[in-house]
Amino acid sequence: MKAFNDENFLLDTAAARQLYHDYAEGLPIIDYHCHLIPEYVASDHRFPNLSKIWLEGDHYKWRAMRTNGVDERFCTGANTSDWEKFEKWAETVPYTMRNPLYHWTHLELKTAFGVEKLLNPATAREIYDHCTAMLQTPERTARGLMRHYNVEAVCTTDDPVDSLEHHLKVKNDGFEVKMLPTWRPDKAMAVEVPADFKAYLDRLAEVSGVQISRFADLIQALQVRHDFFAVAGCRLSDHGIEEFYAEEYTPAEIEAIFEKVYTRGEKLTDNEIKKFKTAMMVEFAVMDHDAGWTQQFHYGAIRNNNSRMMAQLGPDTGFDSIGDFTVAKKMSKFLDMLAGRDKLGKTIIYNLNPRDNEVVATMLGNFQDGRYGAGKIQFGSGWWFLDQKDGMEKQMTALSNLGLLSRFVGMLTDSRSFLSYPRHEYFRRTLCNLLGTDIEKGLLPASEIDFIGREIVAKVCYGNAKEYFKF
Amino acid sequence: MKAFNDENFLLDTAAARQLYHDYAEGLPIIDYHCHLIPEYVASDHRFPNLSKIWLEGDHYKWRAMRTNGVDERFCTGANTSDWEKFEKWAETVPYTMRNPLYHWTHLELKTAFGVEKLLNPATAREIYDHCTAMLQTPERTARGLMRHYNVEAVCTTDDPVDSLEHHLKVKNDGFEVKMLPTWRPDKAMAVEVPADFKAYLDRLAEVSGVQISRFADLIQALQVRHDFFAVAGCRLSDHGIEEFYAEEYTPAEIEAIFEKVYTRGEKLTDNEIKKFKTAMMVEFAVMDHDAGWTQQFHYGAIRNNNSRMMAQLGPDTGFDSIGDFTVAKKMSKFLDMLAGRDKLGKTIIYNLNPRDNEVVATMLGNFQDGRYGAGKIQFGSGWWFLDQKDGMEKQMTALSNLGLLSRFVGMLTDSRSFLSYPRHEYFRRTLCNLLGTDIEKGLLPASEIDFIGREIVAKVCYGNAKEYFKF
Amino acid sequence: MKAFNDENFLLDTAAARQLYHDYAEGLPIIDYHCHLIPEYVASDHRFPNLSKIWLEGDHYKWRAMRTNGVDERFCTGANTSDWEKFEKWAETVPYTMRNPLYHWTHLELKTAFGVEKLLNPATAREIYDHCTAMLQTPERTARGLMRHYNVEAVCTTDDPVDSLEHHLKVKNDGFEVKMLPTWRPDKAMAVEVPADFKAYLDRLAEVSGVQISRFADLIQALQVRHDFFAVAGCRLSDHGIEEFYAEEYTPAEIEAIFEKVYTRGEKLTDNEIKKFKTAMMVEFAVMDHDAGWTQQFHYGAIRNNNSRMMAQLGPDTGFDSIGDFTVAKKMSKFLDMLAGRDKLGKTIIYNLNPRDNEVVATMLGNFQDGRYGAGKIQFGSGWWFLDQKDGMEKQMTALSNLGLLSRFVGMLTDSRSFLSYPRHEYFRRTLCNLLGTDIEKGLLPASEIDFIGREIVAKVCYGNAKEYFKF
Repeated sequence: MKAFNDENFLLDTAAARQLYHDYAEGLPIIDYHCHLIPEYVASDHRFPNLSKIWLEGDHYKWRAMRTNGVDERFCTGANTSDWEKFEKWAETVPYTMRNPLYHWTHLELKTAFGVEKLLNPATAREIYDHCTAMLQTPERTARGLMRHYNVEAVCTTDDPVDSLEHHLKVKNDGFEVKMLPTWRPDKAMAVEVPADFKAYLDRLAEVSGVQISRFADLIQALQVRHDFFAVAGCRLSDHGIEEFYAEEYTPAEIEAIFEKVYTRGEKLTDNEIKKFKTAMMVEFAVMDHDAGWTQQFHYGAIRNNNSRMMAQLGPDTGFDSIGDFTVAKKMSKFLDMLAGRDKLGKTIIYNLNPRDNEVVATMLGNFQDGRYGAGKIQFGSGWWFLDQKDGMEKQMTALSNLGLLSRFVGMLTDSRSFLSYPRHEYFRRTLCNLLGTDIEKGLLPASEIDFIGREIVAKVCYGNAKEYFKF
Repeated sequence: MKAFNDENFLLDTAAARQLYHDYAEGLPIIDYHCHLIPEYVASDHRFPNLSKIWLEGDHYKWRAMRTNGVDERFCTGANTSDWEKFEKWAETVPYTMRNPLYHWTHLELKTAFGVEKLLNPATAREIYDHCTAMLQTPERTARGLMRHYNVEAVCTTDDPVDSLEHHLKVKNDGFEVKMLPTWRPDKAMAVEVPADFKAYLDRLAEVSGVQISRFADLIQALQVRHDFFAVAGCRLSDHGIEEFYAEEYTPAEIEAIFEKVYTRGEKLTDNEIKKFKTAMMVEFAVMDHDAGWTQQFHYGAIRNNNSRMMAQLGPDTGFDSIGDFTVAKKMSKFLDMLAGRDKLGKTIIYNLNPRDNEVVATMLGNFQDGRYGAGKIQFGSGWWFLDQKDGMEKQMTALSNLGLLSRFVGMLTDSRSFLSYPRHEYFRRTLCNLLGTDIEKGLLPASEIDFIGREIVAKVCYGNAKEYFKF
Repeated sequence: MKAFNDENFLLDTAAARQLYHDYAEGLPIIDYHCHLIPEYVASDHRFPNLSKIWLEGDHYKWRAMRTNGVDERFCTGANTSDWEKFEKWAETVPYTMRNPLYHWTHLELKTAFGVEKLLNPATAREIYDHCTAMLQTPERTARGLMRHYNVEAVCTTDDPVDSLEHHLKVKNDGFEVKMLPTWRPDKAMAVEVPADFKAYLDRLAEVSGVQISRFADLIQALQVRHDFFAVAGCRLSDHGIEEFYAEEYTPAEIEAIFEKVYTRGEKLTDNEIKKFKTAMMVEFAVMDHDAGWTQQFHYGAIRNNNSRMMAQLGPDTGFDSIGDFTVAKKMSKFLDMLAGRDKLGKTIIYNLNPRDNEVVATMLGNFQDGRYGAGKIQFGSGWWFLDQKDGMEKQMTALSNLGLLSRFVGMLTDSRSFLSYPRHEYFRRTLCNLLGTDIEKGLLPASEIDFIGREIVAKVCYGNAKEYFKF
């Protein structure tokens, strides 16, 4: 019987253990997509207690607690103490067995704080006090944790109008971990509510110094900010979309739509919205291509399913779920629109519904391009709900069967938390276990274990990302 | 090499065997959704032979026989003897290897009749005679079998106009197994054929004593019956739908639609039908919520695919299959309509296409509600075609990864047969095998095996259902 | 640790090894669907080097090479030497680990040429020279390879206007391997471009000797060719479709549509195209039914995603991928239209998206018909992207759980290459591994291993196809 969460956690075979310990374990972390709060890194934030760093904003834990019958005030309540929230979380943990939270919880406690005990009501107080005390030391501040986990670079997620002051401060401080911005321009194409769109563009005009009266001005203003982001070290963009947009459009149509929504403040039709978003996505893709950036598409979530809770708590509080959209043809057409004018740059596609893994994994192959180098179009690592053993195994198996696992840029946390870096360890163990199991079963030749370690494990865990994003 | 169908069937590891034998094996059965014929329990039906109890009405077996090249007269033929039908089934059984029928067949023969031999043409006669003889004893009548399998409660499936006379008789008899009705009002919203709808409502008016001329009258009449069902012990409703309905509607629109179809007997448009069904589903949900019942949704089947056989044999004869509907947004909107007015009660969603497991498993989390207690919204156990090892494993793994397995209300037979209770054993073994394998692989801590046995295995197999449905 | 690619490759258990070596290994190959070039068999083509037989036209390898960063000229370039192309392929092979290409590559090298070394840059030259030399011997010509692999029959894929001269030559030569044509009439229903349709029908009129002026003439001309194909030994048809067609239509509508597109050369509406295709599919199905043929449907690909590469290289060059179509209701309705008039003959349905395995596997059961014999409607073996261990296992597991694996007609290569026959070995090993693993785990009774070997393994690998297609 294997021990839980020991040094060979998730590693079922001797080959898996060899791959992990010899080739993966010591590698630095490149976390090329996350949602850290830049200000926390800039100020080297010190967290007052374990709840603040671990539960605040963690909608995964809130969902589990709600499912476990915990009242909302222990999740998001303003008048509930941090300890009370932690107590309820500790009560919930044993009931999360087989959910990734059970693994993440104990991996995080172990690697960040040296806690080997299982979290439950009996151990809650001791663990809370121990971790809270450690959080007061310089080794467990925001920057301390990044050093502790051997992080080499992180890419946050930022709006084009953002000043990036925190990124610049961190750079100027000479902090040894790179914190780079990511260009996330969702609001610049959010034309559903004309007034909101106008307000955003007014802000954009202000920060870019470009007066906006026509569509071309909007693009010009965005290009100014895109250039600014590039100077600040940005290497990726990111787009959160339900489905892909790939409508036919003419410049005149887009100009007319822009005038309607921006100048006249009128509501657009569905068709106009889709055309406009297509045009914006194409413009964004061209900017990224020309700058040598990587564009990321996170598609397929249905957000804010629960209107009452949305009204009460706002977005990103645990009321989102997996959609079942039909996307293949539009995804294909959008990529083809770019490839057709030779403006399809490095691209990562993340799907949220695992039933579509094979669609995405085969879509890549249509647009790979030997002129670029290996792995130009990437299948993003298991995203959000799929960021667990089963989800990662399915993503990597689909990628293996239908593309090249060896050219995968690997893991990212997508997290708001400074305690999420063990997910890279979790991913690395899972990857090594897949490959090691194949070796043990004779599906891969044992003679090639060093090649597999150097050229697949080490590259997928670190080298490919380093090379691909050019950090 | 493990033995087939012995006491450790399906249990691959020592931990799995310990969990099953120490925590699951002896628990009573709560079969909270089935299609037993209530009259058989009321009259304590004695089956004249093995074919009558085992083959009659069993469309799973008929499908297998047809696929195996068996002529229709041996499946459903009126002029074919019970023995001849059995003989053809016995010929088919060896060719069902890897189909759940092979496991169910031998598990049922073993647990109901002590038959350890494999069923095939060579053993058919002996097994038929042996089982037929046992069926003549009081231990193997309808009630005898329920006692034999340690059944505590069953919930049948009943129309609102049903008199429930058999349920009442069983209760009055003091039979130690509870047989409770389930509210299945499909016909009350079947407005596709105006004449059929009218006929049904006339019958409803008669049994409820409520004269129906407007929509509100229909709801009132149904409420009378709902109350009557509650008195008879009903705790669940059930709805068989292709897709979810979640159209916007106003009371005036529904009144107009009702008048059109009921009073004027006119055919409705597709849009009217969807609006009307949405309104009915909302009304039903409110009734269930207010009564503290659990509503069940079985969605996603395409029924009666073969028109010729439908004309010849009618529905539920083995010509249904798995659909590929797009449902997430409508399912979300329907649940949100209820949650928005605080009328979303306990709910179980069963999907028929396993590709949608993750959609359903994440949908739950949007509507869990700590005010209710644990596991308010449930992901139904593998349904119909998915009621087998692979299907159950996938359902439980999706639930585990995306929700809380520990709060699952577990298994039900959904069966017409008094010989289907071993499916609970099959489920329990599968559950214990999943958890036991995780322990053996170090994915769950071995130190927690007693917690896992008591708080997960025993609860999922029995305790959660008992608590959730309030039997 | 198991050895890679030895005699027990893919066989994890003793039972699996026994099943493979005792019941599967020596069986002849029936390759009932492939894309061999008939002329190569007729002329007993000798391949000048390993690149020509192995890389030319192999879009699987091209996709892998492009993903690995290989420039297009090494894939399809007219001015690149065969050796240079091979060199780039050899560089790519180690990076295909976990992709089926890695297994296929080494299985093909081993079984066709006795090469036991791994292909990589260090071994490339030696392997290239060795294989190229062997290809110059009579044992490794087109016919030599078919004999070497113990092929009994192959079915190529042919247009109704094809002269079948090569098939007739091969037959007249007395070549011991049957090479039969397959009826693939895609062009006869390709009405999208009126001029192309007219050109095709003019050609059809010419070869059939039937003057075409009305729809009935078209059907008559096709019937003439259908009869001709039958004489040449044809036993199957094949249709490549995105989705199924099942529109309601009347003869008068079809006549009008035909006149519009053919006589007047006008573009059809989407609805007219669908009606016309439905009518054609029904007519084709009736012809096949009446001739006792098997109709095959390959559905669900999205082809030619990359317009630039399509313009440069044409179709079938590696720019196709898996679609996400909604098909269940139309597939059902189409089959029902045929069953309703008693014209549904033997049918094989191949899906390209594995998420739909369960839909297809349950659809079969709606139309199985004891009057025909066992397994009338078949779930096609893992197709194209799914023709690998994981894809085949999922297809066979879905078929097992929802139908009868024992009645499956098994494997086909769907390949253009004379080196693809080891995929039958690959399939057989995978099948035996599934069954052997079940035996070892006690999911199937070990006492029945001889029955499993004779009645399942040997039948699925050979006997069922032989019986089903009547070769």
